[in-house]
Amino acid sequence: MSDSWMVFLGTSAGVPSKLRGLPSILLQYRGKYLLLDAGEGTQIALSRYGIGSSKIDAILITHLHGDHIFGLPGLIQSMGMSSRKKPLLIISPNGLRDFLEASFKTTDFIPQFDVEIREPERTAIGDYIEIVPFKTCHTSLPSYGYLVLGKTPSGDLRFSLAYTGDTKPCESYVDAIKGSEVLIHDSTFSEELRNEAWSFGHSTSKDAALIAREIGAKVLFLFHISNRYNDDLSLLEREARRFFSEAYAAIDGMKFYL
Amino acid sequence: MSDSWMVFLGTSAGVPSKLRGLPSILLQYRGKYLLLDAGEGTQIALSRYGIGSSKIDAILITHLHGDHIFGLPGLIQSMGMSSRKKPLLIISPNGLRDFLEASFKTTDFIPQFDVEIREPERTAIGDYIEIVPFKTCHTSLPSYGYLVLGKTPSGDLRFSLAYTGDTKPCESYVDAIKGSEVLIHDSTFSEELRNEAWSFGHSTSKDAALIAREIGAKVLFLFHISNRYNDDLSLLEREARRFFSEAYAAIDGMKFYL
Repeated sequence: MSDSWMVFLGTSAGVPSKLRGLPSILLQYRGKYLLLDAGEGTQIALSRYGIGSSKIDAILITHLHGDHIFGLPGLIQSMGMSSRKKPLLIISPNGLRDFLEASFKTTDFIPQFDVEIREPERTAIGDYIEIVPFKTCHTSLPSYGYLVLGKTPSGDLRFSLAYTGDTKPCESYVDAIKGSEVLIHDSTFSEELRNEAWSFGHSTSKDAALIAREIGAKVLFLFHISNRYNDDLSLLEREARRFFSEAYAAIDGMKFYL
Repeated sequence: MSDSWMVFLGTSAGVPSKLRGLPSILLQYRGKYLLLDAGEGTQIALSRYGIGSSKIDAILITHLHGDHIFGLPGLIQSMGMSSRKKPLLIISPNGLRDFLEASFKTTDFIPQFDVEIREPERTAIGDYIEIVPFKTCHTSLPSYGYLVLGKTPSGDLRFSLAYTGDTKPCESYVDAIKGSEVLIHDSTFSEELRNEAWSFGHSTSKDAALIAREIGAKVLFLFHISNRYNDDLSLLEREARRFFSEAYAAIDGMKFYL
């Protein structure tokens, strides 16, 4: 069994459903735990999968829309209630601090551990993980994706994973994620709603598949999926596989060994 | 079948678990929908039980601790995404507005429907429901419980329900809820942890049962239950029933016809 894995905690677009929680992905490598986005319900999903919230070392936020950050205040408070001492690193576009401070002030909470908020930049998480942010094309708010590189003790590349967050397809990030083995890409709609997808700064499953092919990925996870596909989850996969055979619609609770 | 019901959306104390989500209760009477507290994950629980978030007319907040309010920003944004037009009334102790405004500003969201925030006072919700807030004894933050009265078209009392939110037992609210048929009471711990319960402004199941007996309730729901009882859910019920026979530990998804 591999020493590195990720699990999809929530895979929906902006509104949750019976099937899908709001966006969040947990990644573990060599004892370090990273969270990619933290939609409402992230701490609840963690408890469902038996993972203590205090294990998390770093949280990477792609952009400041509510469905990607409203799980943060509760998650951090639960870390506090479990007497966490180790510092928490949050990488996020500018503006998160005001929201977290308002959350804590209103609810009379002061974390008893360091919460460092850093703007997106190349960052080492422990000795074996490196984070490389890249700009994406979502809305007028700043938006980033993250390339996560896992290294062996000898410095070789063990895995590479790119998570786009919300974005329409655009060339600006293709170079940044070229060669990434695992791609987790916005796939809000299917191709028949391409205009709607692009106008809201999102991608279709075809868009995601074409990017996966272009960067030479080994596997593509379709992510941030609209509730309109709850009755036919295979539709997006079928569309994507016409362009990239190893495409899978992400499902809450799905675990993947890197 | 009764025309009035409530469903427990989340029944845990401060931290959620596999079994229990964070505090929230939905009540329906004559087409009006009330939410009592809105812990993180409230909108996810609503979707699980097939209830559109836009149905909600009013939200009653007992106090401004995170586990009772962190579901609000996402819930209100989801209401906005479903093109809600009808106004939303939120009754809450002072301070909620700053938190909600920070949430909306950070995430670039402007509700396209009226959100009225009102401090606790006697309030009519439509023609048949009346809300009567009462002060409780939790922490140094202001805390309230709510008495919900359902009236018939002829003005008779159809049901009465008292929800305490978080509180240790204290005489100050007993008069306010005297005669209430349904009591939903803080029952964070069992009697062996009474000192811990009271020092944190909470009640034991024995406390809750004694209050239910004193006010002449017909049924008591033990609520806001610590995760330490997940392996023996009957313990709190057994303790309470020594003092009040119709005591039940609330469970997520449990529906009760009023």
